[in-house]
Amino acid sequence: MSGDEFHSVVARFACEVQWGDCDPAGIIFYPTYFRWMDAATWAFLDSVGYNARRCREEHRAMPLVSAECQFLAPAGQGDRCEVRSRITRFGAKSFVVSHEVVRADGTLMARGNETRVWGRFVDGHGSQMKGEPIPEELKARFRAS
Amino acid sequence: MSGDEFHSVVARFACEVQWGDCDPAGIIFYPTYFRWMDAATWAFLDSVGYNARRCREEHRAMPLVSAECQFLAPAGQGDRCEVRSRITRFGAKSFVVSHEVVRADGTLMARGNETRVWGRFVDGHGSQMKGEPIPEELKARFRAS
Amino acid sequence: MSGDEFHSVVARFACEVQWGDCDPAGIIFYPTYFRWMDAATWAFLDSVGYNARRCREEHRAMPLVSAECQFLAPAGQGDRCEVRSRITRFGAKSFVVSHEVVRADGTLMARGNETRVWGRFVDGHGSQMKGEPIPEELKARFRAS
Amino acid sequence: MSGDEFHSVVARFACEVQWGDCDPAGIIFYPTYFRWMDAATWAFLDSVGYNARRCREEHRAMPLVSAECQFLAPAGQGDRCEVRSRITRFGAKSFVVSHEVVRADGTLMARGNETRVWGRFVDGHGSQMKGEPIPEELKARFRAS
Repeated sequence: MSGDEFHSVVARFACEVQWGDCDPAGIIFYPTYFRWMDAATWAFLDSVGYNARRCREEHRAMPLVSAECQFLAPAGQGDRCEVRSRITRFGAKSFVVSHEVVRADGTLMARGNETRVWGRFVDGHGSQMKGEPIPEELKARFRAS
Repeated sequence: MSGDEFHSVVARFACEVQWGDCDPAGIIFYPTYFRWMDAATWAFLDSVGYNARRCREEHRAMPLVSAECQFLAPAGQGDRCEVRSRITRFGAKSFVVSHEVVRADGTLMARGNETRVWGRFVDGHGSQMKGEPIPEELKARFRAS
Repeated sequence: MSGDEFHSVVARFACEVQWGDCDPAGIIFYPTYFRWMDAATWAFLDSVGYNARRCREEHRAMPLVSAECQFLAPAGQGDRCEVRSRITRFGAKSFVVSHEVVRADGTLMARGNETRVWGRFVDGHGSQMKGEPIPEELKARFRAS
Repeated sequence: MSGDEFHSVVARFACEVQWGDCDPAGIIFYPTYFRWMDAATWAFLDSVGYNARRCREEHRAMPLVSAECQFLAPAGQGDRCEVRSRITRFGAKSFVVSHEVVRADGTLMARGNETRVWGRFVDGHGSQMKGEPIPEELKARFRAS
């Protein structure tokens, strides 16, 4: 992965901590944050004009290279949050989405990163996935003006 | 469980099918509907003035007796849905929440029922849960005027 | 759906209640049972010689018509359970899998049914799924001798 | 966090990729790895003589400071895996659990770390959680002889 930090638009994905997202300690079960970050990334792609239907038709997916998250404050049932996502780096075939999870009262709950490949199933869905060069046209969609 | 059908208010809970809610067939993994119905029931309780905080403070929970769902149309990633919930029966200590999951285009995707107990942890959280008579005051909150 | 009750082999699927499967009441979050039943059905199919790879290659899936479960005893973290599954009915294109969840101490925790279609993606994965007549050869695999 | 690398026993937690753990790309949905790592940590604690019941009675939990994972090979439905966990660091009140997810054929699928606090609910379950100094007696349980 190479290249300078990318000046990205910021997407906002609304979510709420549900009863079933919490564990016996009464706080959010941490993989929930990763579920949210994944959903936020798809919503981000949608928000720049690349929706789920198009991804399906073009046999696209965005497999993960790595993911990490820091948990800063414990979220509980009923907490309304927003995932704020931006692209922090574009490599040749991969990219980094950085997420901040902010509660309605402004508290920063978690901060994480996903490194993903811009991938495609070469022989249609279910076949081997390959990374592809990220088109300039796609990068432009995420660039803050 | 006894009593006539209850004339209930209807609550609406918004949800959306995420990438991670779908399975390799490309459609919603069915336990997701039960996750939604559970969340919709908590949101319903909240909407009539009984929020999660109060439930916690009063050591309340609503354990399930049974749950069932019919799947009428396959939902896919990006489908925006609404769970429409109402109380269809109040027993002495239990009640039935009936849910319809309707997609934004009006398609009825699923229809289900949860039978729950109005429960409380008698010695605080983590202790044994007991069913309690459902107060008339609570039933009144759900009654359509 | 038609036909007499089917005399089925019984499959056993081992599972254990994890911390993250439990909710703030300290007991299993109920959609977990449906996750288990789904996994148990796939394991059942595998146990009679129809594994996931074959299903993928033949573009098969088993979409749900309905699912229901009765919750008989509260399961908690660390409970080791077994899902005992059998076919209770074969229709023309659909079938019913009945499950019992039994804890290591012999307690029956839950009992449920899934009604499923024997389906195939007619133009490969991601396309429209169609129900197909259940082959006699398949039924024979599930028949107790 | 301070201290040299810790020479830890290695715990093994068996798991299998289920249909419902996979996404429309036909491979494991990545938060599943974090669910596994969480379950593996609890199983690890159990394996050194600190079971879930004791944790409950002592109002213990192990909230996360951070978690990260690298995804090295795509896992699919039916893959049998093992999470191999060890403690790589003990701080005053926190510790790091390092996990490797290895498939039955020996392929290293993923590698991750969880940084956790040794926590306790000071006024019983549901109250505020506080970090506590990790007892030497506990560390000794994890030390490889």
